[in-house]
Amino acid sequence: MFDFQYFTPTKVVFGRNTEGRVAELIREFGGHKVLIHYGGGSVVRSGLLQRVTDTLDGAGIPWIALGGAVPNPRLSLVYEGIELCRKEGVDFLLAVGGGSAIDSAKAIGYGVANEGEVWDFYDYRRTAKACLPLGVILTIAATGSEMSDSSVITKEEGLVKRGYSSDYGRPKFAIMNPELTMTLPDYQTACGCTDIMMHTMERYFTNGGNMEITDAIAEGLLRTVMTNAEILARDPKNYDARAEVMWAGSLSHNGLTGCGNDGGDWMTHKLEHELGGLYDVAHGAGLAAIWGSWARYVYRDCLPRFRRFAVRVMGVEETGSDEEIALKGIEALEAFFRRIHMPTNLRELGVTATDEDLVTMAHKCAVGVDGAKGSARLLREEDMLAIFRASV
Amino acid sequence: MFDFQYFTPTKVVFGRNTEGRVAELIREFGGHKVLIHYGGGSVVRSGLLQRVTDTLDGAGIPWIALGGAVPNPRLSLVYEGIELCRKEGVDFLLAVGGGSAIDSAKAIGYGVANEGEVWDFYDYRRTAKACLPLGVILTIAATGSEMSDSSVITKEEGLVKRGYSSDYGRPKFAIMNPELTMTLPDYQTACGCTDIMMHTMERYFTNGGNMEITDAIAEGLLRTVMTNAEILARDPKNYDARAEVMWAGSLSHNGLTGCGNDGGDWMTHKLEHELGGLYDVAHGAGLAAIWGSWARYVYRDCLPRFRRFAVRVMGVEETGSDEEIALKGIEALEAFFRRIHMPTNLRELGVTATDEDLVTMAHKCAVGVDGAKGSARLLREEDMLAIFRASV
Repeated sequence: MFDFQYFTPTKVVFGRNTEGRVAELIREFGGHKVLIHYGGGSVVRSGLLQRVTDTLDGAGIPWIALGGAVPNPRLSLVYEGIELCRKEGVDFLLAVGGGSAIDSAKAIGYGVANEGEVWDFYDYRRTAKACLPLGVILTIAATGSEMSDSSVITKEEGLVKRGYSSDYGRPKFAIMNPELTMTLPDYQTACGCTDIMMHTMERYFTNGGNMEITDAIAEGLLRTVMTNAEILARDPKNYDARAEVMWAGSLSHNGLTGCGNDGGDWMTHKLEHELGGLYDVAHGAGLAAIWGSWARYVYRDCLPRFRRFAVRVMGVEETGSDEEIALKGIEALEAFFRRIHMPTNLRELGVTATDEDLVTMAHKCAVGVDGAKGSARLLREEDMLAIFRASV
Repeated sequence: MFDFQYFTPTKVVFGRNTEGRVAELIREFGGHKVLIHYGGGSVVRSGLLQRVTDTLDGAGIPWIALGGAVPNPRLSLVYEGIELCRKEGVDFLLAVGGGSAIDSAKAIGYGVANEGEVWDFYDYRRTAKACLPLGVILTIAATGSEMSDSSVITKEEGLVKRGYSSDYGRPKFAIMNPELTMTLPDYQTACGCTDIMMHTMERYFTNGGNMEITDAIAEGLLRTVMTNAEILARDPKNYDARAEVMWAGSLSHNGLTGCGNDGGDWMTHKLEHELGGLYDVAHGAGLAAIWGSWARYVYRDCLPRFRRFAVRVMGVEETGSDEEIALKGIEALEAFFRRIHMPTNLRELGVTATDEDLVTMAHKCAVGVDGAKGSARLLREEDMLAIFRASV
């Protein structure tokens, strides 16, 4: 069992109509002038943005807005946000949307609150000393960024996708109304459920020792997300299922499911970041497309965990060898991905990669992790390439 | 499913030797002069207090110390602490100990940071507007006070025991080194495990609707505590078991196991508070002594939850009627209590109560909850008396 630090200061306000409390929460956390940061037109079309700005106007809180955060959010928009905040004297960020808007807002927050080049943090050259305070109105359950310390930004030059983690970036509050996620396309809902599961699974498949209570929480969370992902595939407006998935999304990435372990594996995420940087695929779908190839490549090196996963999460019967049980667990999760219409390889993801592309991605991934990474199995560049090749 | 707010800002620093980080954490949260508040002689005898004061001296952080917090901590000591803090210009509280020291420190914090009589908060007359910042070095896994919003204080006059909850009272940090709990007497370890379980069970037995992910977490937590309580009964120095129980103690009472429910039942706690006020029994043992009588009195009114508890937590087979399964679950938990040497009635608790005592406790309890309380079943004074009578 490893020592750990657990710090989840984000005040979660969960339930119907909770977005109406946004002004009160901004005041509580000391905001006087707000940059509302959002993504595409959906928060405009749904009327949410209007409701938010009406609430701020009613409370006398001045605001400016910056839209345009895209999946795999771009560094250029981050620069634009930083400049805008400085020019307008913004002291509080409000992200309205999903992980893209939140991650982009975190990067803006680091940029405003620290001197120098913000990309340095994402390029592992410096650590941030502060972040502008940030609140969230969540509209997509997926990345867990609303409670997490991490954000992922893509630099257009060279299409480099990198994540940075710091407690300074944890949002001050997260308004979570499951109803706001009901209009998501089914594909994005399924992508979100996959991402949520992967945040726990990355922490689960380790060789460094674990904590029983963390495992029990992780397994319960994974079962809950699977059950409710299938409900949502049939009944996208089911409030309770939306709520289960939304809360699972936050708990899956706020640190809870990693307490006592060695930090986790994270190689499925790292491999997917290269896919996402090059092809701009949906993050959750990219994870689903890679996971099976990763799992088959590493499971013999992390057999007790894959066996446990098979039995306790996927409900595989305990007959046959440990390897057989572990493999059945992998197959069962791939079958689940197919049931919620997630890809299990690059072809199903819609990506046609040349071998040269795979070589490039493996190389960039290896550079990004300083040569090697992974707990279930330590992967070097040749392993990453083998997994990419197995995933086409 | 109910809306909820979830706010657990406490920075948890968990693992061996983590008490060495106390000065750094006090500085991080803005402390300049510290009142170290502790209980009996154990933190002195173990050398922990000396290590803490050496660390503060080394960091140049001035401190004063106030010991004497007892189980069911007393209002008179709270007054003493408030006066001391004001006189000495203390701006940070450090509780070193278990729930008694922490709860007493929270009350001191409310008293220093608010005008007027501190008992008003515990007597439900006013709400606190602030609390002096508080850090914790935990030495007993039990009350969860190291992350919770609540504290319980006993007023000597009339032996009135009351709890007050406010987010202001949540500790800024909690240093949790499982090794510090290894010297606890077995009885106190078992009391702690019972208290930890009850914090989740109070939230679990409800009629107001629940959340599946919360249930899954609650059930995993309860199973983990039971497994490790039995390990500790045989092997008190088992680090991993100490760690599982310690972390479960925080998660069980920081709000996590109540998300989406109606607030919980809490009547076992309320009934025990009267026991604790009158007889000064260990809180966990008091809970164990009352729970069975409470459960048998209310289970028919909350049958789906008692049935689920029996199957998912206690491992009862799903044969027979729902009532039979539910009763087997109650019996199984009582059998577990006996295995870890906890009482299952007042006699085993060592309390010989006259019927007049029971009438007095039921009356005080009913007054304390403004007449009636409970979600599994709404209990009035006559119900409380019936449960007390069944528990002798």
